[in-house]
Amino acid sequence: MPSTPPAGGPPPGDMDPEDFRRQGHRLVDWIADYLAHAERYPVLAQVAPGDIRNALPRQAPEQGEPFDAIFADFERVLVPGLTHWNHPGFFAYFAITGSGPGVLAEFLSAALNQQAMLWRTSPAATELEEVALGWLRRLMGLPDTFEGVIYDTASVSTMHALIAAREVAVPQVRQRGLAGRADLPRLRVYCSEQTHSSIDKAVIAIGLGHDSLRKIPCDGHFRMRPDALRDAIAEDRAAGWQPMAVVATVGTTSTTSVDPVPAIADICEAERLWLHVDAAYAGVAAILPDHREVLAGADRADSLVVNPHKWLFTPFDLSAFFCRRMDIVRAAFALTPEYLKTTDAATVRNLMDTGVQLGRRFRALKLWMILRYFGADGIRVRLAEHIRLAQLFAGWVDADSDFERLAPVPFSVVCFRVKPAGRALSEADLEALNARILDEVNRTGEIFISHTRLDGRYALRLAVGHLRTTETHVRRAWALTREKAGI
Amino acid sequence: MPSTPPAGGPPPGDMDPEDFRRQGHRLVDWIADYLAHAERYPVLAQVAPGDIRNALPRQAPEQGEPFDAIFADFERVLVPGLTHWNHPGFFAYFAITGSGPGVLAEFLSAALNQQAMLWRTSPAATELEEVALGWLRRLMGLPDTFEGVIYDTASVSTMHALIAAREVAVPQVRQRGLAGRADLPRLRVYCSEQTHSSIDKAVIAIGLGHDSLRKIPCDGHFRMRPDALRDAIAEDRAAGWQPMAVVATVGTTSTTSVDPVPAIADICEAERLWLHVDAAYAGVAAILPDHREVLAGADRADSLVVNPHKWLFTPFDLSAFFCRRMDIVRAAFALTPEYLKTTDAATVRNLMDTGVQLGRRFRALKLWMILRYFGADGIRVRLAEHIRLAQLFAGWVDADSDFERLAPVPFSVVCFRVKPAGRALSEADLEALNARILDEVNRTGEIFISHTRLDGRYALRLAVGHLRTTETHVRRAWALTREKAGI
Repeated sequence: MPSTPPAGGPPPGDMDPEDFRRQGHRLVDWIADYLAHAERYPVLAQVAPGDIRNALPRQAPEQGEPFDAIFADFERVLVPGLTHWNHPGFFAYFAITGSGPGVLAEFLSAALNQQAMLWRTSPAATELEEVALGWLRRLMGLPDTFEGVIYDTASVSTMHALIAAREVAVPQVRQRGLAGRADLPRLRVYCSEQTHSSIDKAVIAIGLGHDSLRKIPCDGHFRMRPDALRDAIAEDRAAGWQPMAVVATVGTTSTTSVDPVPAIADICEAERLWLHVDAAYAGVAAILPDHREVLAGADRADSLVVNPHKWLFTPFDLSAFFCRRMDIVRAAFALTPEYLKTTDAATVRNLMDTGVQLGRRFRALKLWMILRYFGADGIRVRLAEHIRLAQLFAGWVDADSDFERLAPVPFSVVCFRVKPAGRALSEADLEALNARILDEVNRTGEIFISHTRLDGRYALRLAVGHLRTTETHVRRAWALTREKAGI
Repeated sequence: MPSTPPAGGPPPGDMDPEDFRRQGHRLVDWIADYLAHAERYPVLAQVAPGDIRNALPRQAPEQGEPFDAIFADFERVLVPGLTHWNHPGFFAYFAITGSGPGVLAEFLSAALNQQAMLWRTSPAATELEEVALGWLRRLMGLPDTFEGVIYDTASVSTMHALIAAREVAVPQVRQRGLAGRADLPRLRVYCSEQTHSSIDKAVIAIGLGHDSLRKIPCDGHFRMRPDALRDAIAEDRAAGWQPMAVVATVGTTSTTSVDPVPAIADICEAERLWLHVDAAYAGVAAILPDHREVLAGADRADSLVVNPHKWLFTPFDLSAFFCRRMDIVRAAFALTPEYLKTTDAATVRNLMDTGVQLGRRFRALKLWMILRYFGADGIRVRLAEHIRLAQLFAGWVDADSDFERLAPVPFSVVCFRVKPAGRALSEADLEALNARILDEVNRTGEIFISHTRLDGRYALRLAVGHLRTTETHVRRAWALTREKAGI
């Protein structure tokens, strides 16, 4: 029992080192086994709402408990309530991997407990962030004019991009804000109708309002139409709006479509708008020589986000924000109270100056370890394999007259639906059929896929992205889908 | 070498399980040793700017490298660049602990790689967050009317509090925003002149502007003066500002002073203003029966933030945001694109609806394990010991005619300075003397303290908060300070 002070001895401190060692070794074995055999678990949790909560007491225990008892409850109560993102049959949303070297790095990072708000509070975390982001930037072919900073999520990265855009567009906004100013017009941000909801949340959060977001129509392949963007800007200017920023997406969430960034960059330059590229998922594909063009034009963006926790095998969370004008982010936020002043301020970079969050954890460690462990070549091989598996699945869809593919497959995501040949089903019937199949497939616990809606059509969505996913799993996903469709 | 596909075999996946196991066991031993003997390292990193960066290559390696080589570089290059927050001689800022059970929980959390945006993407993480925050809330004596959610940092928690306040104060702000609206006055947020810089950053981020933050004078004990708050609100209303929110602090960053929350709550109720309580550091002191009153009046707040990663032994990051009106946070943010729609939406809580960030990692696991491992009683014993150590140090300061204490010590932080008896030194001389002492003390590598400025006076600042800090360390801090002062 850790909480009882030994009579006459020192007051209790942290866990006993030998207990830590014993429990740590046990966890290593458990985790090694888990990562190698996550397939023993149903990928989508099979519990009902409230099951976890109701199995746990309403109060913290009064006396400390041995770690053995806590771990036993972890296995008994919590594990059945996990949806296994680290399962090779996870094909929903964007499939991700908490890879071995990344998990080990996070273990170290937790133990070191760095808080890198100032350079001096963790020179290693501060400078390794610069090094690891530099490696990633060069692998993706972005110029060195982009400075990088790590945030938790793309939502927060994009929010910072739009705050920087606002800093440029609105005179004295840092000091005077937006409200109660007769000198300000309404501001407009543009993205495509396929853009991620994080853009909606960002414009709401920073006080622009949801009306400020204008969604530009897409072409038949779900890519923003530059002509429609140009028209919208002209129309807005005529109506008294002030255009402020454009968010282009490289790898949209539904179909992984790629907006035409070069044409959008032309417009942004002509109109003097901040260009933010959301490459959270697909940016890393630029590491592949034959996919380098997915970031064409991105060198002309003001900012870009790519999430190593999506398709670069990095345990969640780690979002890499690259900005050609990080001085603007600093101008928006830098603010040093006396208790954080240091004598080295002129010579070092203090991470707290780049954003809302003062505290920064040591996320760079996992990215650095992952890039070294797999190596550039190893990363290319793995990304290419994921793309190959998705293309394989798309090929089966295309070759089967009872299936329909609903979008191009530029990366590792396939949007499709069951559409039985020779039966004239309404859109509503097709939706009901596919929603039932989705539900039944996911109930098997063998795979987990998600859905979306494209041009009003309900689509099943298979995303490949886990390092342990093999052709066998993709074949099983195909067989299960056909089986539940009654084909 | 992990990146070379075996000829004819399957394409490479994740780290080999046996390699993971071997490296994991090695890390457990390293970490157990580190946590038990962090004193072997200088607490404040002794490297120069650029040392880490310059010791590492500019490019990621082309071929993968063995984990042994990566870990060797970790020890050789990175460890000297760490400032050891997990060192018992860390007395700077707020001293924190990444405790044993917390570190083990983070290891598990990284391996499970949960992303709890939706209930179904991690029922365990979603419901355990509710359970663990319920435990914490009850330990602190907050009523069950406060719903909790976990964010990364207090900066982000407070930003959400102010977004909720804005949602209440400004009609249609989610839709229409703040800019270009003739119907909106300028908005005002109040805090004391001792309030944390995160409030400044939040008003800037959400578009209110820095001018919107009015800092209220403090009394002689660095607590917000309610009379001055009342006057400021009246003055602002007369001048056409619209008061919106008040941020009261329980445990300010410089001196850990506690604003008079009951009197401030009276004003907020009368004026219909959102009351946010920043109890990031000191809120947990309410777990102690004899400190319960530090949260007096907090039950009347609209929102409150407390950071288990500060003084509850939780590895960074974990900020607990409690809100009596979480429906307002949801009204500000909830927004479900098709690809995230689920059929259970009416019966479950989806964490993505409470805030900017879509993705949420499994932070609740460490809080739950820590509360169980130490138990309520064990936590009380440890917090009380930290307070006792700070009082002890304050007593030495008070008893020594060459020292001056500069603020009350309600918790575990002491603000003081060297002021040699019988020498008439100017404020500038005193500052130079104490700044030199600070620098020299920190250069020893035995302890790390920080500074602040109080009523224009330069103050040294000693914060107790690490679980392995004992009276011996505090005595050593006192001896070192006297030695470097030449006393």
